Amino acid sequence: METDVTTELYPRERLSQVQQATAEAGLGALLLTPGPDLRYVTGYNALPLERLTCLVVPSSGDPFLVVPRLELPAAKESPAGDLGVELVPWDETDDPYALVAGRLPGQVGTVGLADRMWAMMVLRFRDAMPGAEQVLAGTVLRELRMRKSAAEVAALREAGAAIDRVHRRVPDFLKPGRTEREVGRDIADAIIAEGHETVDFVIVGSGPNGANPHAELSDRVIRPGEPVVVDIGGTMPSGYCSDSTRNYCVGTPPDDYLAYYRVLQEAQQASCDAVKPGVTPEAVDAAGREVIAAAGYGEYFIHRTGHGIGLESHEEPYIVAGNTEPLEAGMAFSIEPGIYPGAHGARIEDIVVCTENGADRMNTTDRSVIIVG
Amino acid sequence: METDVTTELYPRERLSQVQQATAEAGLGALLLTPGPDLRYVTGYNALPLERLTCLVVPSSGDPFLVVPRLELPAAKESPAGDLGVELVPWDETDDPYALVAGRLPGQVGTVGLADRMWAMMVLRFRDAMPGAEQVLAGTVLRELRMRKSAAEVAALREAGAAIDRVHRRVPDFLKPGRTEREVGRDIADAIIAEGHETVDFVIVGSGPNGANPHAELSDRVIRPGEPVVVDIGGTMPSGYCSDSTRNYCVGTPPDDYLAYYRVLQEAQQASCDAVKPGVTPEAVDAAGREVIAAAGYGEYFIHRTGHGIGLESHEEPYIVAGNTEPLEAGMAFSIEPGIYPGAHGARIEDIVVCTENGADRMNTTDRSVIIVG
Repeated sequence: METDVTTELYPRERLSQVQQATAEAGLGALLLTPGPDLRYVTGYNALPLERLTCLVVPSSGDPFLVVPRLELPAAKESPAGDLGVELVPWDETDDPYALVAGRLPGQVGTVGLADRMWAMMVLRFRDAMPGAEQVLAGTVLRELRMRKSAAEVAALREAGAAIDRVHRRVPDFLKPGRTEREVGRDIADAIIAEGHETVDFVIVGSGPNGANPHAELSDRVIRPGEPVVVDIGGTMPSGYCSDSTRNYCVGTPPDDYLAYYRVLQEAQQASCDAVKPGVTPEAVDAAGREVIAAAGYGEYFIHRTGHGIGLESHEEPYIVAGNTEPLEAGMAFSIEPGIYPGAHGARIEDIVVCTENGADRMNTTDRSVIIVG
Repeated sequence: METDVTTELYPRERLSQVQQATAEAGLGALLLTPGPDLRYVTGYNALPLERLTCLVVPSSGDPFLVVPRLELPAAKESPAGDLGVELVPWDETDDPYALVAGRLPGQVGTVGLADRMWAMMVLRFRDAMPGAEQVLAGTVLRELRMRKSAAEVAALREAGAAIDRVHRRVPDFLKPGRTEREVGRDIADAIIAEGHETVDFVIVGSGPNGANPHAELSDRVIRPGEPVVVDIGGTMPSGYCSDSTRNYCVGTPPDDYLAYYRVLQEAQQASCDAVKPGVTPEAVDAAGREVIAAAGYGEYFIHRTGHGIGLESHEEPYIVAGNTEPLEAGMAFSIEPGIYPGAHGARIEDIVVCTENGADRMNTTDRSVIIVG
């Protein structure tokens, strides 16, 4: 991963940018355990283990990376090994929490913890630094992570193209008489074959299961004339995620389905059209929701319009009523309204990036109902 | 998953047993978010999401499961839906943390958090229940989770048999001229094909990479005469994990390797022989370590002897110096000493269950160096 691409996506200067933001936020230090926060700051995709790995970013002084001695070779080989950060190994019978506390310069009033740090580590740090108030590292990192760089947008576009290739292959998998699970397995294989490193989720909701937005793969046999919601995503080797939903039908769809599907397409377009810098996420949500409500389907749109995406499939900003923090250029999120009357359902989802010219869609496959044989 | 097997593995009475243990430990409630703790108590393998799912087990009164409304169908279909626990859905604009705090009966002095709860949830709960001290649910659950039931031992044996089948196929994959990564991909496919639901790790450490206990798959080409450490594991549909290390050599191994390999086999046997109820983990560690030290290789055994295993690949008890809590029948853990001089290395790992008759090995494939062509 130590290629030019990595350097663009995880630039060396990000660490000092994060350190400065930490100081400006009035925090004494960030404590970043394996997960998306650590990867964002260093490019290091460390394994989540019970043995503590933690990047310590003090508001002043040198950052350092505490690692179990066993992980020292992996840390050295990772992009974190190129940042000029001291690697501090600990041995099997050491207390790494005391080690972190002891090396922090002076008295630390507030520490920011990686948003996904495990409770077992949160409480050990609390006890090792009784004087430090714990807040989320997200209070600092969200401002940076929400605003994607050009390289991050390129990585999201690459992820979008990969999941689009999978959607183009779905008609090969989706045949009457096959079960959701069988179709889902083929899709999962295709997600990897088309360039993802991991499969994050595969929803194949046929008939009534399509009316459950988070349906799990079942042994239900897909029958002719049934609409099928296919919502799929994975993580690319870059660390960035894909997520796109399209709708298929084995043969001719029912008329009532086609009626609300047209409304859904219009609503998804309306929310996309609403995206531009300065607009609030709740206004983007409302734009599509109003179209659906005006057509009489309001009660069947039972979730928020979308979620941010980047190193996590779900991150800020959330496109939901109540979120009034204006969008800015570079923010990336899903636009995925749905209508779920019960006998079947539909959802159309694209990842979009907010630009000065409006929404730039990372997913470009056909948004109409795709009829398969 | 709602089969008889599930009921045996995740018995309905476990919830009341956990509630009683919570009361006895003096905790007001457990708060269990998705992960191994929630699965242990209910059988529910919930997705880890930013939307809060949380089983609340008060020390008295009725437990309840708070779920995002979108997850309600999945929760109902899961084994948790059969426990007679009230499911409390929350909507997109609700505050689920306030919901939990408001429904807890009376004043709660101490709450136990799932060991892997994300910091973003830990701090939200801290703020929603300012009067409650946060401790780990592990303080209650570790006592239960460490002592495997007969059904859990059966699940570990099934997992062990599955990974043993993969090891028996390794000679088909491991050929001179192939890279570690190529061999690793075949092994990962075999881990799934032999019955696991997920691949948790695949280490193929050839030559000097074998001297790095946590080597990542590389593009290093495997050459004749090179020892290769293969350490692999996955999670079964039951939720229980496998983990076993065997050693292979493409052609004839070097003499110095064979010399220390004999010592390693003896050491692994010595640690296994030391296992019985009442013996401390540190004594099990010392038994093998002494054999290695006496033969002059002490400096090359650079990690603990093992880790507990169950719903997590790494859990308590850890077989390490300093752990003096006596073993009991039903405890399950790895015995995996290693010797890593540098040009190559070796590690032999079995999962064992402590019984009144000593160590019961879940892995039974040949522990000598396996010569492959």
